[in-house]
Amino acid sequence: MSGTISDNEIISRLQKLSISHPEVIEHAPVKGGAEWKAELDKVGHGSVALTKTLLFKPKTAKTAAPTPVLVIALESTETPSSILGNHLNLKELRLASEDLIKEVIPSAQSKDDVSSLALPSIPSTLHVCLDSALASSSEAYGVHLTSSSKTVLLKGTDLKSYLESLTSGGNVQVVDFAALKAAAPAPSAPASASKPNAAPAAAARTPAAKKDEDLYEMAIQYKKEEDFPGWYADVLIKGQMLDYYDVSGCYILRPGSYTVWQYIQSWFDEEIKKLGVQDCYFPMFVSKAKLEKEKDHIEGFAPEVAWVTRAGSSELEEHIAIRPTSETVMYPYYAKWIQSHRDLPLRLNQWNSVVRWEFKNPQPFLRTREFLWQEGHTAFLTRQEAADEVMEILDLYAKVYTDLLAVPVIPGKKSEKEKFAGADYTTTVEGFIPTTGRGIQGGTSHHLGQNFSRMFDIVVENPDRSVTENDGKIHVYQNSWGLSTRTLGVMVMVHGDDQGLVLPPRVALQQVVIVPVGLSKTEGKNGEIYDACSKLEKTLIAGGIRAKADLREGYTPGWKFNDWEMRGVPLRLELGPRDIAANSALAVRRVDNHKAPMPLDGIAETVKAYLEDVHERMYEKAKAKYDSCLKTLNNWEDVVPTLDAKNVLVLPWCEEEACEDMIKEKSASQANKGVAEDAKAPSAGAKSLCIPFDQERFGPFPDGKDQKCIQCGKPAKSWTMFGRNGVLSAWFKSVRV
Amino acid sequence: MSGTISDNEIISRLQKLSISHPEVIEHAPVKGGAEWKAELDKVGHGSVALTKTLLFKPKTAKTAAPTPVLVIALESTETPSSILGNHLNLKELRLASEDLIKEVIPSAQSKDDVSSLALPSIPSTLHVCLDSALASSSEAYGVHLTSSSKTVLLKGTDLKSYLESLTSGGNVQVVDFAALKAAAPAPSAPASASKPNAAPAAAARTPAAKKDEDLYEMAIQYKKEEDFPGWYADVLIKGQMLDYYDVSGCYILRPGSYTVWQYIQSWFDEEIKKLGVQDCYFPMFVSKAKLEKEKDHIEGFAPEVAWVTRAGSSELEEHIAIRPTSETVMYPYYAKWIQSHRDLPLRLNQWNSVVRWEFKNPQPFLRTREFLWQEGHTAFLTRQEAADEVMEILDLYAKVYTDLLAVPVIPGKKSEKEKFAGADYTTTVEGFIPTTGRGIQGGTSHHLGQNFSRMFDIVVENPDRSVTENDGKIHVYQNSWGLSTRTLGVMVMVHGDDQGLVLPPRVALQQVVIVPVGLSKTEGKNGEIYDACSKLEKTLIAGGIRAKADLREGYTPGWKFNDWEMRGVPLRLELGPRDIAANSALAVRRVDNHKAPMPLDGIAETVKAYLEDVHERMYEKAKAKYDSCLKTLNNWEDVVPTLDAKNVLVLPWCEEEACEDMIKEKSASQANKGVAEDAKAPSAGAKSLCIPFDQERFGPFPDGKDQKCIQCGKPAKSWTMFGRNGVLSAWFKSVRV
Repeated sequence: MSGTISDNEIISRLQKLSISHPEVIEHAPVKGGAEWKAELDKVGHGSVALTKTLLFKPKTAKTAAPTPVLVIALESTETPSSILGNHLNLKELRLASEDLIKEVIPSAQSKDDVSSLALPSIPSTLHVCLDSALASSSEAYGVHLTSSSKTVLLKGTDLKSYLESLTSGGNVQVVDFAALKAAAPAPSAPASASKPNAAPAAAARTPAAKKDEDLYEMAIQYKKEEDFPGWYADVLIKGQMLDYYDVSGCYILRPGSYTVWQYIQSWFDEEIKKLGVQDCYFPMFVSKAKLEKEKDHIEGFAPEVAWVTRAGSSELEEHIAIRPTSETVMYPYYAKWIQSHRDLPLRLNQWNSVVRWEFKNPQPFLRTREFLWQEGHTAFLTRQEAADEVMEILDLYAKVYTDLLAVPVIPGKKSEKEKFAGADYTTTVEGFIPTTGRGIQGGTSHHLGQNFSRMFDIVVENPDRSVTENDGKIHVYQNSWGLSTRTLGVMVMVHGDDQGLVLPPRVALQQVVIVPVGLSKTEGKNGEIYDACSKLEKTLIAGGIRAKADLREGYTPGWKFNDWEMRGVPLRLELGPRDIAANSALAVRRVDNHKAPMPLDGIAETVKAYLEDVHERMYEKAKAKYDSCLKTLNNWEDVVPTLDAKNVLVLPWCEEEACEDMIKEKSASQANKGVAEDAKAPSAGAKSLCIPFDQERFGPFPDGKDQKCIQCGKPAKSWTMFGRNGVLSAWFKSVRV
Repeated sequence: MSGTISDNEIISRLQKLSISHPEVIEHAPVKGGAEWKAELDKVGHGSVALTKTLLFKPKTAKTAAPTPVLVIALESTETPSSILGNHLNLKELRLASEDLIKEVIPSAQSKDDVSSLALPSIPSTLHVCLDSALASSSEAYGVHLTSSSKTVLLKGTDLKSYLESLTSGGNVQVVDFAALKAAAPAPSAPASASKPNAAPAAAARTPAAKKDEDLYEMAIQYKKEEDFPGWYADVLIKGQMLDYYDVSGCYILRPGSYTVWQYIQSWFDEEIKKLGVQDCYFPMFVSKAKLEKEKDHIEGFAPEVAWVTRAGSSELEEHIAIRPTSETVMYPYYAKWIQSHRDLPLRLNQWNSVVRWEFKNPQPFLRTREFLWQEGHTAFLTRQEAADEVMEILDLYAKVYTDLLAVPVIPGKKSEKEKFAGADYTTTVEGFIPTTGRGIQGGTSHHLGQNFSRMFDIVVENPDRSVTENDGKIHVYQNSWGLSTRTLGVMVMVHGDDQGLVLPPRVALQQVVIVPVGLSKTEGKNGEIYDACSKLEKTLIAGGIRAKADLREGYTPGWKFNDWEMRGVPLRLELGPRDIAANSALAVRRVDNHKAPMPLDGIAETVKAYLEDVHERMYEKAKAKYDSCLKTLNNWEDVVPTLDAKNVLVLPWCEEEACEDMIKEKSASQANKGVAEDAKAPSAGAKSLCIPFDQERFGPFPDGKDQKCIQCGKPAKSWTMFGRNGVLSAWFKSVRV
């Protein structure tokens, strides 16, 4: 095998072969498909279909020269090494060592850089296996150049020509992996007519197969603690919550995530209706005139507004915006509908999507160009009624997190600096992502006072005619409050682990999966097990539990375990001959992998209680973590080290904005200075997250009169939470830049 | 009073006063605000705020000269003539006769043309009362010129200057109607502290007040049978189902309509989930490349696609479409997600909104630029499974109409000509609007065969490996099915009457309204009645009934009856001293105004049964009407007269397209010829609506072998429904052009 190939050499090889391709895309180095996808997404190529290139080493005599196998396949093609080994008559294929990689592809710095384009040549000792689905496709796919930070788009057929041009003793084998896989499992038993799926081939493998090399590519590729953004993207995709989309910043919400949103919707909607709120739907379009009517309000949104300027082939006379939020859409109608105090309160809510065309890096659920939310907009005769509602709604938001998503939050008030522009005050439920030590705003309920009613002239006669102030007129008191699909991102980040998603049972698409185990290779022997699984599924569904029996043929129990673990199903019930004999199932709890038999008698009731217990365990676990990271400090010296240790600070603060700014500035600069040796240290300063309503939990204050503001030393007014924020973005920055 | 004023004279008067105004808007003549709004909406000015101009005549001695009162007010201002009369010291104001109108404003042809702009002058005998809300406003409002077919936009302050320029002995009085109204009711009793709303002023009026002149402007202005489009717009606005919006073709769905949609959503979603369908959400944006990938499919939508070309101040490099439907959005991902027959069936549904930028006249619910719907997209291994689902879904659509909306529909198959482009076949539930005699498609469920899976390459290995056909691959079988907010339009058109909406109880926002009656003028005497109403409200709500006690002060019972009738509340319970003494309430059924006492003991259960009975009555009434308009014909001569009598035809048909075309052509031309004397006769030909699945109800056919196609005389294959369609558009055309 010959010398190192450069990117330029690859390009000139392509030119020689007259293979046209778009420009080379540069991005941050990536590990694996999910991260690659995420990086391409950032630079506007999120929809590119990807390839994967894997180098395997078969078992050979130690003295023999290695005969490595290079597999180039669609990212979505399963390429089990055992089956490929059988096909090539090679034993025990294992992923190649870095040494072997450098031998085959000298330009590669690590396994992430393995790319077939950088092969110097294809000698007879190298097996090159090209996925037939890729070889025959005239679609363009992403392939790396010499490193994982550059991507070129090539048609499958062109890639094939390219590889064939490199043969020098060896050759390029086109392999139909799907066919190999279908043909592979030894027991060729045709399924019985009455129960076609009853005897899955290869199902005899034991759970141990889970750690098989076949699962290597399928499992989550990142450790949550080591590469949080990579892990996050990987669990979302492999856990089937979402998929990338070919409009940057937009994602497909698959049933795994959308259903969680529906449970949130359904619960919250019922609760607000009990309060007297009604749902409505305003158009997604806003005229330029309406949008720009309130200059101050729109200023913040203007750079992100998407404009429709054309319909069919007609240019529109007036450009039309897609709503970024609905204040200026709705309030002119409030002015019309509210003619008298008898029309109050007016309490409307919308479930819709809004569009904010952000140009920063998109992040699934946290920063997307279109997102789903609810927005409540209400109007009252008195400030007190409005203020009461603010808290009622905030309480519901807290319950969405604690009671549905098993995520702890702390309700409080935003500082003047951090409140919603246009609000008298903003209340919030603050969440926490332990992995990054960052706070995250979970949902906000604003009291708008009369700020918008004055702008939009929403006014009624004072029913108390003795009042002559303001000509006897009252501008109504308004609130607005919103909760978005960001909730789903928080849920994933708080609960997920290295095996994948961990879903809280009350909102999980599937609450229970039933997997048949201990299957016999002998045809027709497994009917009883399959029947027992189906029966159990029916029993649980009849009991109101979202259960599914996974009777897919051709997958080992281990493969299935892994699959459902990635998807975060709270409870797995394994059912095999011994379980059936013992009239029980083996219950495996996702959150802690706890295993115990569960009697089949009365199982629906048992499972219900079990799932409630799972919810409690998940909540308690997350709450214990949050609580342990809430650090009450009184000395400034402790601030930066405590932040660096991924904590949220609870500081005595005078509530002056100058102090708030100073805390941010000082904690940022000291962070940079103090821990310069750790390149990954987040350098952002701490900003105020909220002033918790429950002050008492943090000790005898504000009664303790001697308590001083940690920054200025003047009397403190409250315990206030401070922390670094930007859950993913700051982290992205810290690990990538 | 002097001579006739022309439009040109008005314009030149404005110029003399240096009053600037945009161009005059021309439109069809209108009667009242709803129709005016609708006409302005058609020409892109739907958001214009309107004025109203009313001429009243007070009671004077017959021999005395009349002293008419001209009121110019915001459309939304209530201008009760009794209160105005008190204010002006004039007796019994009544709307003026046409003779008096022509005397005051000689250019006016009818009361619809009354406009203050066309006043020759303001003599001392004319009282001109200008709404203070209008007089002080610098917003622009719509005002007519000399006729109701022309609108000019004037600022309120400019209108005031204009009128003041016309004074010639008389003057312009600015009147604060809201203040008058608030001050008017005689009993000045201040509300008691403990129960501020307990003794509403003016509440002593009897139900007879309902027919008072005060209600004149508030009630529905059109007869359903006389002016269907005017009636439709009026009931939607006054029934508070929707409001106009300042982007043409878009409407605000107020709680009255959106909640109906939510009940449909909630019921249908639960049903499809039982079938195994899952919900998801795809982005609203589609890249140009994806949208245009399938040329044939997009061809029909292309002229109506809305394009986003700009975000903030940046021009987008690639223009992005807003989905008009989601086939090309979703199916590329189906190709990715479906890798094996084990991934089948894939059954996804979306609740979303789609945008079709139509340039035809918009019609609320029936033709809007953005509309809400669900779109189901499913994929199966076999044609049979897909075909079974088509019918399961169609059955659910039928139940949405019959079981939720109390609207009869007929399930059937569309002809080849009328099926969805790209489908193997289309099934439909066909509704009927008796007032226009038109059929309306209620919801469609399509079997797409392999048409899209071939385009998008959605393919799996055949699990039966003995099959070698097509290389052992199977393109999946697909369905798509959709139901939109059009359902709401059909519901309104079928059930509404001259008093307003009539809502089917299972989906009504409010099922029961409780109105206190027989109130005493004496302070503090009505507490018992109000308490009884509140208690009854609580009892019903606790029983799961959507009940509301209308305790608004300052409105007569009659006013409230009218208000809730317009909104279509199925059941009104009146509660007064006599009712309380008899331990009962007076139950008034909206659908037929039937009245009977209802005992208060066990009333929640009684009301539940009562509402179920209301549903049945509404359904039976609508079904009897539909059935009576389904005319089985065998002779061609009967076709046109039967169509003209607002029927749907059931014809024996050979199922050949040529015959279908001929039926349409012949029925159109004969209609035009035959009934030329009636200018309102709809002239469209009859097209095929559907081939009902239940053929037997129409008699011994297709067994009767002698049955011949009504058009060609060859053997007929089925009874097929034919009718004119275009529920509102054709009707609009026929009455307006």
